[in-house]
Amino acid sequence: MDTISSQLEAQVIEVPSWAYGNSGTRFRVFGSPGTPRTIQEKLADAAQVNRFTGLSPKVALHYPWDKVDDWAGLKAYAEELGLELGTVNSNTFQDEAYKFGSLAHNDPKVRRKAIDHHLECLEIMNEIGSTDLKIWLADGTNYPGQGDIRRRQDWLAESLATIYAELGAEQRLVLEYKFFEPAFYHTDVPDWGTSFAHVNALGDKALVCLDTGHHAPGTNIEFIVAQLLRLGKLGSFDFNSRFYADDDLVVGAADPFQLFRILWEVRRGGGFDPATGVAFMLDQCHNIEDKVPGQIRSVLNVQEMTARVLLLDADELAAAQDANDVLGANEILMDAFYTDVRPMLAEWRESRGLPGNPMKAFAESGYLAKIAEERVGGAQAGWGA
Amino acid sequence: MDTISSQLEAQVIEVPSWAYGNSGTRFRVFGSPGTPRTIQEKLADAAQVNRFTGLSPKVALHYPWDKVDDWAGLKAYAEELGLELGTVNSNTFQDEAYKFGSLAHNDPKVRRKAIDHHLECLEIMNEIGSTDLKIWLADGTNYPGQGDIRRRQDWLAESLATIYAELGAEQRLVLEYKFFEPAFYHTDVPDWGTSFAHVNALGDKALVCLDTGHHAPGTNIEFIVAQLLRLGKLGSFDFNSRFYADDDLVVGAADPFQLFRILWEVRRGGGFDPATGVAFMLDQCHNIEDKVPGQIRSVLNVQEMTARVLLLDADELAAAQDANDVLGANEILMDAFYTDVRPMLAEWRESRGLPGNPMKAFAESGYLAKIAEERVGGAQAGWGA
Amino acid sequence: MDTISSQLEAQVIEVPSWAYGNSGTRFRVFGSPGTPRTIQEKLADAAQVNRFTGLSPKVALHYPWDKVDDWAGLKAYAEELGLELGTVNSNTFQDEAYKFGSLAHNDPKVRRKAIDHHLECLEIMNEIGSTDLKIWLADGTNYPGQGDIRRRQDWLAESLATIYAELGAEQRLVLEYKFFEPAFYHTDVPDWGTSFAHVNALGDKALVCLDTGHHAPGTNIEFIVAQLLRLGKLGSFDFNSRFYADDDLVVGAADPFQLFRILWEVRRGGGFDPATGVAFMLDQCHNIEDKVPGQIRSVLNVQEMTARVLLLDADELAAAQDANDVLGANEILMDAFYTDVRPMLAEWRESRGLPGNPMKAFAESGYLAKIAEERVGGAQAGWGA
Amino acid sequence: MDTISSQLEAQVIEVPSWAYGNSGTRFRVFGSPGTPRTIQEKLADAAQVNRFTGLSPKVALHYPWDKVDDWAGLKAYAEELGLELGTVNSNTFQDEAYKFGSLAHNDPKVRRKAIDHHLECLEIMNEIGSTDLKIWLADGTNYPGQGDIRRRQDWLAESLATIYAELGAEQRLVLEYKFFEPAFYHTDVPDWGTSFAHVNALGDKALVCLDTGHHAPGTNIEFIVAQLLRLGKLGSFDFNSRFYADDDLVVGAADPFQLFRILWEVRRGGGFDPATGVAFMLDQCHNIEDKVPGQIRSVLNVQEMTARVLLLDADELAAAQDANDVLGANEILMDAFYTDVRPMLAEWRESRGLPGNPMKAFAESGYLAKIAEERVGGAQAGWGA
Repeated sequence: MDTISSQLEAQVIEVPSWAYGNSGTRFRVFGSPGTPRTIQEKLADAAQVNRFTGLSPKVALHYPWDKVDDWAGLKAYAEELGLELGTVNSNTFQDEAYKFGSLAHNDPKVRRKAIDHHLECLEIMNEIGSTDLKIWLADGTNYPGQGDIRRRQDWLAESLATIYAELGAEQRLVLEYKFFEPAFYHTDVPDWGTSFAHVNALGDKALVCLDTGHHAPGTNIEFIVAQLLRLGKLGSFDFNSRFYADDDLVVGAADPFQLFRILWEVRRGGGFDPATGVAFMLDQCHNIEDKVPGQIRSVLNVQEMTARVLLLDADELAAAQDANDVLGANEILMDAFYTDVRPMLAEWRESRGLPGNPMKAFAESGYLAKIAEERVGGAQAGWGA
Repeated sequence: MDTISSQLEAQVIEVPSWAYGNSGTRFRVFGSPGTPRTIQEKLADAAQVNRFTGLSPKVALHYPWDKVDDWAGLKAYAEELGLELGTVNSNTFQDEAYKFGSLAHNDPKVRRKAIDHHLECLEIMNEIGSTDLKIWLADGTNYPGQGDIRRRQDWLAESLATIYAELGAEQRLVLEYKFFEPAFYHTDVPDWGTSFAHVNALGDKALVCLDTGHHAPGTNIEFIVAQLLRLGKLGSFDFNSRFYADDDLVVGAADPFQLFRILWEVRRGGGFDPATGVAFMLDQCHNIEDKVPGQIRSVLNVQEMTARVLLLDADELAAAQDANDVLGANEILMDAFYTDVRPMLAEWRESRGLPGNPMKAFAESGYLAKIAEERVGGAQAGWGA
Repeated sequence: MDTISSQLEAQVIEVPSWAYGNSGTRFRVFGSPGTPRTIQEKLADAAQVNRFTGLSPKVALHYPWDKVDDWAGLKAYAEELGLELGTVNSNTFQDEAYKFGSLAHNDPKVRRKAIDHHLECLEIMNEIGSTDLKIWLADGTNYPGQGDIRRRQDWLAESLATIYAELGAEQRLVLEYKFFEPAFYHTDVPDWGTSFAHVNALGDKALVCLDTGHHAPGTNIEFIVAQLLRLGKLGSFDFNSRFYADDDLVVGAADPFQLFRILWEVRRGGGFDPATGVAFMLDQCHNIEDKVPGQIRSVLNVQEMTARVLLLDADELAAAQDANDVLGANEILMDAFYTDVRPMLAEWRESRGLPGNPMKAFAESGYLAKIAEERVGGAQAGWGA
Repeated sequence: MDTISSQLEAQVIEVPSWAYGNSGTRFRVFGSPGTPRTIQEKLADAAQVNRFTGLSPKVALHYPWDKVDDWAGLKAYAEELGLELGTVNSNTFQDEAYKFGSLAHNDPKVRRKAIDHHLECLEIMNEIGSTDLKIWLADGTNYPGQGDIRRRQDWLAESLATIYAELGAEQRLVLEYKFFEPAFYHTDVPDWGTSFAHVNALGDKALVCLDTGHHAPGTNIEFIVAQLLRLGKLGSFDFNSRFYADDDLVVGAADPFQLFRILWEVRRGGGFDPATGVAFMLDQCHNIEDKVPGQIRSVLNVQEMTARVLLLDADELAAAQDANDVLGANEILMDAFYTDVRPMLAEWRESRGLPGNPMKAFAESGYLAKIAEERVGGAQAGWGA
């Protein structure tokens, strides 16, 4: 434990502002008492996650969902809460203009509008001191023939280059890919290869964002992690978990061993070294479970799995691999996975003034009852606002 | 053509009232000018589909989306439009009470509420002369451990039996299954096996509804069609098409050859014989395309593919199959699939006073412009109302 | 641990004779020194697995791969090794006659031959005292149109009924289903629904075999386990694990949490109660890893996961489920999964005269070196013989 | 038809020598009378395909399956048959040394052996005038932890660079990717992104080979085609079709509309222009159907679908796309797909001295009976030799 303590110490998991608002499926968005009405209330909730875990001092924003008039004021407010404002996520999928795409749209006026939206994001980033512009695009088509797949790639490349040109010296553009949804025939950035081809063409400040829920069934995600780290192009993670499609469940909930393998490749490729610049973010939807404890559960899952990964004896593993000892090498990996790190982590947390069991401590804090009582009236935040 | 003319004549494709309203994804529902505000306007749109194709004299309703005070009046209005009211679809996924399930909910009060909703549907069916109650359930859980899979099956069986007991002599209960969504860990009726086990236990008036978009990747759907027809348990189809999940695209748009194979097994199993009682319905979402022509395109796709299937020389195929002539048997099937039946069908339509090219005729009718102009104000219908 | 000790005591995992022979892919079968040449040598290897784990006193046979002249002698030999002969697996996929199917073949002569093969299996079962006849069929077609899906079901039903009629009073027929392979278009028993429909028609002595690698991507297997137990039709498991298709890897190697969830539903449905009659078998291929330790690893994986499942506080879970406490219920499940049962199990094993670490003890036994030295010449056993 | 005649004229579909030998699954390889025993007999069969279709004057070789002492003699023999020897496929998956990999193996001696094998292929290419070296690797692992994913990429890159350095001025290296099989946990070149990253690093003479059966379920293959053409990196196709995994069925047999969409993107990206250098090959297994007619059926499927694609009015489509006329654009595409080009092609073939119906003409030629009678004794060719 001593050996991994400093690495755990350095761990930061960025939480998404939108996880504290309501979300759902096309069938129904269920609300819950106490859901934030404003970005300020979302930050207050995020501060709870950090307070009980010490893991999430950074909050990613979504623009325009989190739009305020006074960005400097928001930054100051976050700092009062012990938080930093992180990645800015653009949104070009809810305006009427984007019905048929945004940065890859066939109409240059729509592309311009979408580019301008991103330039606005850059301005906000300048104001709040954020370094990462994350671009996820809903662009695509629903029917074969509907769009010109080839030209859309060219338009996309041109749009991205225009945005890239405006990045500050310390700023980065991370391009997320997604297998499908909301487009149901073709998606303009459907896989890591496409994202890589684009960021590779753009330059050093462009990187790939890997959302763990955005792949075809059966995809070996840790391979992509290893490959992107090798290519120097892994910019960030959007963690969540899935059984079927982009289910956006709590990270580690669906296939904890997959999370372990992913984090192992992060370690193997040096991705826990801050110099590598990999941002670890959550991107989840708490459709039916309580949101704040849902987030606490999530950051703890990442922490626990990181601890397992850090405890693995890499030299021993390498030796077994060199000997092609299939069962032996596998057993070394599994041994780390099956180690119950929870008691160690509880102790470690307590030694740093944090509750040993953050879930329990939060439940006992009465926070959920408090916000349910206080936050009455107004419109609960969701994806639409 | 002569030989199949009477079979084409008999073809009825039931259209869903909700296809004429707005729909979308969790990311955005885009509206369009002229979208119906009421069930009456939906019926008016559906009447257009029937007017230009002669294929869809029947409209399926969704309750409570299509709730009216005067059901007899609605029936009369439909008849004026040359339409019949068909299957009644229940809805137990949008009320706050159903956050954790409906007929399979752990709370008996919620189950009772959901049962009562279905009994209300039966009353409506009595008033409008509808024979089919279609049950699709959103019931399921998002996280392992959240619910008791086993007990939920028992509760579900009990709820279904209570509803089944109230069916009239000529009424049927059709139970739809779905692989996933909106539940992301387990779904209470996820596959045809589950649906079959339940309707088999219920009795002769309970049947399975097969939605072509509700299967795991790679599932051989025509096999299920053949099996359910063999077991005497295929109650109805919900036609649509998919590339990924439950995309609800225009039937035949994603994999036309699959539609052909499905309809071939329908023919092979006698499913085009009205005595078999198979209902052919659409269940689609026209998220970005125009709705009325989207429905016209859909019913034409089913008609065209049916014509190809009917033209197949079944004796020749059986002979090649008996001889295990792999390539020969396959070629007989492909020959029917590759036959361009469109000119024949155009002629056949014209001979019966219908436009040869319904898509073109509808476009020239100016109907879309007319409703865009007339239907101003009010709330466009969607899944929420 | 005390509370679950007797349940662990009762656990029997049946090992497959063919796991000790060579296997591979269509690209290559790699051999290894010491691979058995005869069923006697396979049994000797299986006895090692049981010697070091105490878990696998039963060996499933494959006919005709394990054909001998003297079945009584084989039984006696097994008993000398402390083993019992278990399930008999039929094989109707390697004879030239079965190119286009066996029990579902269009030619009645081929069906008769396949039926006779199964009757021969029943005779062997009588001689060796085996109760279970397991039927997995390679039957299917590669091209649309090649076969008549519907008639093949009827032929299959007829063939099964003929075999079923010959079952002894204490014997069972378990019908395995498989998503695909070796057939690439349609498979005659592709899913649990089909298997259930057939065994349901046959009678009480016919049950379903669930192979954990035989499902479409994303299938919730534990749901099927729960459903089959509820329907009283779960006859046996074929355990293995998969990332893609029917990979036949070591059980628990690909998705340990899935194995946990499956075994939880076994417990929930009473499947660990011997009275339920569920047989727990392995069906794996050790293509590149050592076979005997591969099997030891596998039975230990099942044992460890069973211990986790048995430790779960079912009452606490039910209470959280009744309260719809999503995160709380999930946490109870995860807590059991994350518990490191290995030290407890090591102690428990030692208390019963078994090695605490069977993998290590076996490695130190020198058995692999011994058989590599002794088993020289002859033809190594594989799927072909 | 006139307008597309010259484009059809230019079409060449390269057939694989191994398609004429036996193939199967891990369960069984069924032979058939007349199967070639030698590469010369394979070429004789391939010549039949070309004789009846005029489409396949080029044959791809597999080394060492097609090894001969006298390569110049083989070339001369091919020319006598009216054939050209095409792509050379290396094979590093059947030698005992490659149990744990080849170009990505952890042992430098094994990597060297695999590199040397490829250099040998280059020498053969020089002798027979072949320009393309196709590399498909079985490299990968079956268990998490077994190999070091990251280092294997580096070793692979190094191996490829060594081979690339030896390419002649007119020669190309095409790197094929595959989702899985025979490796079941990780594959070293699993997706187009990985293949692209490697060939991009290698240089202009390195390109990607796209096998249509090598993707995850649901993958939009035509998107990859469009992207690779855009990036100038589409070297060749391996055509076949699949319902589940790498089924290697006749191209166009499983999802003809997908083949149409792929070929449409080929046209859209200029890939039919010989200057683009895209090679159109088949890679199929005729496990149960006759091999020569299986190949004839396949090249005809590609030709027919190419004709449909060439008939599409690209300007009209672009106009509908520019107008975001979803249904209109889709209809233009579908119209081309549903056009029955078979009568036109029959006429066109006859005008060039070819049989209008090549399948029928071949069947009537009696060739299969002739080789069945003549090719007696010896070992039928398969994957092992």
